Amino acid sequence: MATHLLSSSSSRICSSSFNQIPNSIHAFIHPVKPYNFTSNSQYHKRCCTFTKLACLCSKSRLLCQSTTTKAVISEIPYQNQKYSKIGALSVGPIPSAKLLESVEIAAKTGAEVVMEAVNKPRNISYKGLTDLVTDTDKMSEAAILSVVRKNFPDHLILGEEGGVIGDSSSDYLWCIDPLDGTTNFAHGYPSFAVSVGVLFRGKPAAAAVVEFVGGAMCWNTRIFSAVAGGGAFCNGQKIHVSQTDKVERSLLVTGFGYEHDDPWATNMNLFKEFTDISRGVRRLGAAAVDMCHVALGIVEAYWEYRLKPWDMAAGVLVMLLILEICFKKSSLCSLLEKIGIATEELKGKGIDFSLWYKPDDYNTEL
Amino acid sequence: MATHLLSSSSSRICSSSFNQIPNSIHAFIHPVKPYNFTSNSQYHKRCCTFTKLACLCSKSRLLCQSTTTKAVISEIPYQNQKYSKIGALSVGPIPSAKLLESVEIAAKTGAEVVMEAVNKPRNISYKGLTDLVTDTDKMSEAAILSVVRKNFPDHLILGEEGGVIGDSSSDYLWCIDPLDGTTNFAHGYPSFAVSVGVLFRGKPAAAAVVEFVGGAMCWNTRIFSAVAGGGAFCNGQKIHVSQTDKVERSLLVTGFGYEHDDPWATNMNLFKEFTDISRGVRRLGAAAVDMCHVALGIVEAYWEYRLKPWDMAAGVLVMLLILEICFKKSSLCSLLEKIGIATEELKGKGIDFSLWYKPDDYNTEL
Repeated sequence: MATHLLSSSSSRICSSSFNQIPNSIHAFIHPVKPYNFTSNSQYHKRCCTFTKLACLCSKSRLLCQSTTTKAVISEIPYQNQKYSKIGALSVGPIPSAKLLESVEIAAKTGAEVVMEAVNKPRNISYKGLTDLVTDTDKMSEAAILSVVRKNFPDHLILGEEGGVIGDSSSDYLWCIDPLDGTTNFAHGYPSFAVSVGVLFRGKPAAAAVVEFVGGAMCWNTRIFSAVAGGGAFCNGQKIHVSQTDKVERSLLVTGFGYEHDDPWATNMNLFKEFTDISRGVRRLGAAAVDMCHVALGIVEAYWEYRLKPWDMAAGVLVMLLILEICFKKSSLCSLLEKIGIATEELKGKGIDFSLWYKPDDYNTEL
Repeated sequence: MATHLLSSSSSRICSSSFNQIPNSIHAFIHPVKPYNFTSNSQYHKRCCTFTKLACLCSKSRLLCQSTTTKAVISEIPYQNQKYSKIGALSVGPIPSAKLLESVEIAAKTGAEVVMEAVNKPRNISYKGLTDLVTDTDKMSEAAILSVVRKNFPDHLILGEEGGVIGDSSSDYLWCIDPLDGTTNFAHGYPSFAVSVGVLFRGKPAAAAVVEFVGGAMCWNTRIFSAVAGGGAFCNGQKIHVSQTDKVERSLLVTGFGYEHDDPWATNMNLFKEFTDISRGVRRLGAAAVDMCHVALGIVEAYWEYRLKPWDMAAGVLVMLLILEICFKKSSLCSLLEKIGIATEELKGKGIDFSLWYKPDDYNTEL
């Protein structure tokens, strides 16, 4: 089993923000082309196909851009046809139930560390002016790593704080965000989460997100989990996305990253535009939580630029796995279209959304 | 005891949005001049005096603009002097403890109605395209009114849904928001609240806000309360504002109202600007909750245009009553200054922030 931190010299760097992230992977490789819409009508058609996933999928240099979006697009026939299963077609040699149990145990192990810390003073350090990291992030990741490596010593692991660990020839890649929403955690502001997702050959296989809710005097958690082919759950109960199909009846949520670049400014415009036409846009501060809230049906859509794999892996899977329900053509598509146009404009300025963080040598089916 | 709904013909109307609010009061009277800063340095000095309250106080046609802000300004000497008590100097003939107990019981009574409804389907109607009201808002208000009128049959009451009820010659005015954050409630998105504040001769005397936290599978509540001269509490424990004194170390929160007018657009600009310079700006969706979160110290500042008395009464008091701690001059003042400049520009466009909703004939010391 090899432990290595990829060096920036080994491959392309595609974002100035990237160098601002210490202790995480330092390489982009295997650029994956985003889906190219050949015409507006085709674009719109695609939008309609995965409405609820909509804003998430269209946006940026994301895990789902190389894996899940393409999977969705290739596997889901257009309206009025039965939808096939989403996520990894196979979760590999490890049984689904075992994999699900393992991600849940891993996430809960991290959550125990975080719960220990919620009412104690924070020891904060900085990755940037406003990009925080606390001792709790590191302790949570260490606890999760310990569980994963004990159970699966030959798996590859990508942690927000620790970078890449393990055997890159493994079919399994664990993506760990030991504390998603660190700023909220530092302030005692709900929500934040511990997020663990595992991919099989680059496709989402199983995921768990422990959300911290409430706040001082009433901290509590709920756990979202999902396994490919098995649906998504909250505290063990099956969950579903909202059935709302109108923008003006929708509640949306977004996020703004630490790098205040062109996509950040574009997202400000989208925030304004979508606030204007919907019931409102929430800004809660934890990406995995936002995605789970889409899965739970309490917001209709989520979008954000510039997420990292550990922000996404678990939340995306939880969201994707409930997409087995059919989607109707709906006016929510218009949101995706607007994001698509804004994103194309960014690309026109030279912003590169085509690459994806992926550990060197990690094999995918894509 | 008189029950009446003030007619719009009886006094000035100062906002186009006003006519869009059915079943609430239809009159602006007793215009109160906002505090006039005679120079930039004086403005800055004032800012520093009530930093934590900052963004809240400077903004708009608010309850606190006629009552609390002026009280703060007139009663609190400038730095390095001991701060006097804030809120009503007297809570009148009703003992403080009794008044506090009464607002808490009133808010909890409404909260019981809301808790009954959190997991049930909503029956939604509309005040505007995206301004919701549910049966639960109405049932909660009815329950609260019943408690208040039983205990204090001669008090004046201003409810979000039912308008003005009671004897306008009373020294006591109850401001009731039976469900603050109705959109969140309708979607099952935390947080929302039941908010009850009581004024004595126009000054905040006691308040209680029951916040609903968590969400599906884990709904819970916590209660914020405050009484003039007695401090502020969460679940009975004394709370304090944040000690953070730097913008770049601050987490902020704001709201956007249903009327998408010039102040709404101005606030979008402030949202962008403050997101850029702070740790982030949250947008949670319930004004009273946001204010209580300032009181709890989990966000450093809150600002919003166009709030109504029922949005404000309780939250403002909870916030105000912890301002008995001293404030240091801090860079957070710069936020207030920016809001002040933006607000002056709005005034220059003819936006009138100088009036306040106040039931006809209700006597204040202001």
